[in-house]
Amino acid sequence: MLHSDYPEQTCSIARSLEAVGERWTLLILRDVLLGTTRFDDLVESLGITRTVLARRLDHLVEEGVLERRPYQQRPERFAYTATPKGRALGGVLTALMHWGDAYYPASDGPPRLMLHRGCGGAVRQQLTCTVCAERVDGADVDAVPGPGLGGRDLHRTGV
Amino acid sequence: MLHSDYPEQTCSIARSLEAVGERWTLLILRDVLLGTTRFDDLVESLGITRTVLARRLDHLVEEGVLERRPYQQRPERFAYTATPKGRALGGVLTALMHWGDAYYPASDGPPRLMLHRGCGGAVRQQLTCTVCAERVDGADVDAVPGPGLGGRDLHRTGV
Repeated sequence: MLHSDYPEQTCSIARSLEAVGERWTLLILRDVLLGTTRFDDLVESLGITRTVLARRLDHLVEEGVLERRPYQQRPERFAYTATPKGRALGGVLTALMHWGDAYYPASDGPPRLMLHRGCGGAVRQQLTCTVCAERVDGADVDAVPGPGLGGRDLHRTGV
Repeated sequence: MLHSDYPEQTCSIARSLEAVGERWTLLILRDVLLGTTRFDDLVESLGITRTVLARRLDHLVEEGVLERRPYQQRPERFAYTATPKGRALGGVLTALMHWGDAYYPASDGPPRLMLHRGCGGAVRQQLTCTVCAERVDGADVDAVPGPGLGGRDLHRTGV
């Protein structure tokens, strides 16, 4: 059985954080998605100990977020690439990046830009309704208990 | 000077995680946004020790993510509400929730639904181009060094 960090939580946010919420984990994924894939390059880019990096990478491979492949035989060396499940965390990283850009701005401007390939426009995360297709403001979202909650709703109101 | 968890990182994702990346922090914010605002109710909802909760709440107030106000005088008791900066993290929580729903599905369906008020449609995070206004697939995003990086780009390619 998997170790559970938040055992009393029936919540997809809690479950996601059990997979990728540990210190360094999302920064490792960020680097891999940006093209830094080799173990030694990740050590250098992150300024992290080899032991901690190895532990986090093992966890991400176990969770199916990253795939490991050897790129050299003697001595054996490994590189890591994101699976579709790992690439699907791009939205989490994008949301964290834009929040940091907005509330902890670097003096010279954003450290990194996300641009629409071809068009060159800045890309943003936007809440969108899957029924009426409108852009949705966060204040117009109701977070309601779903079928997986089993009637156990400890919270009093919607968002 | 603020303590820095990731001192060698010039990155808005790293900066954001210094503010809200600690264990329990995003789950506390989730509860507050869902309407559980009192200290004692948060203890019960989260299954967290009072000491850890108090420490995390202090940090979130210092960072300007939550506001503290007394709701009772003798004995004095406090409640917490999200600031605009805290509400702006809704996109991060939404992205984590949808990733968890997709890759760690509960047997009965999602524990929680995010619905467009009035319309009732499911709400999704969608990458959108701010220039051509099109929906953008993650594979069509280039993450390029921005002005705040100061020319120090350790990564080799765009996403």
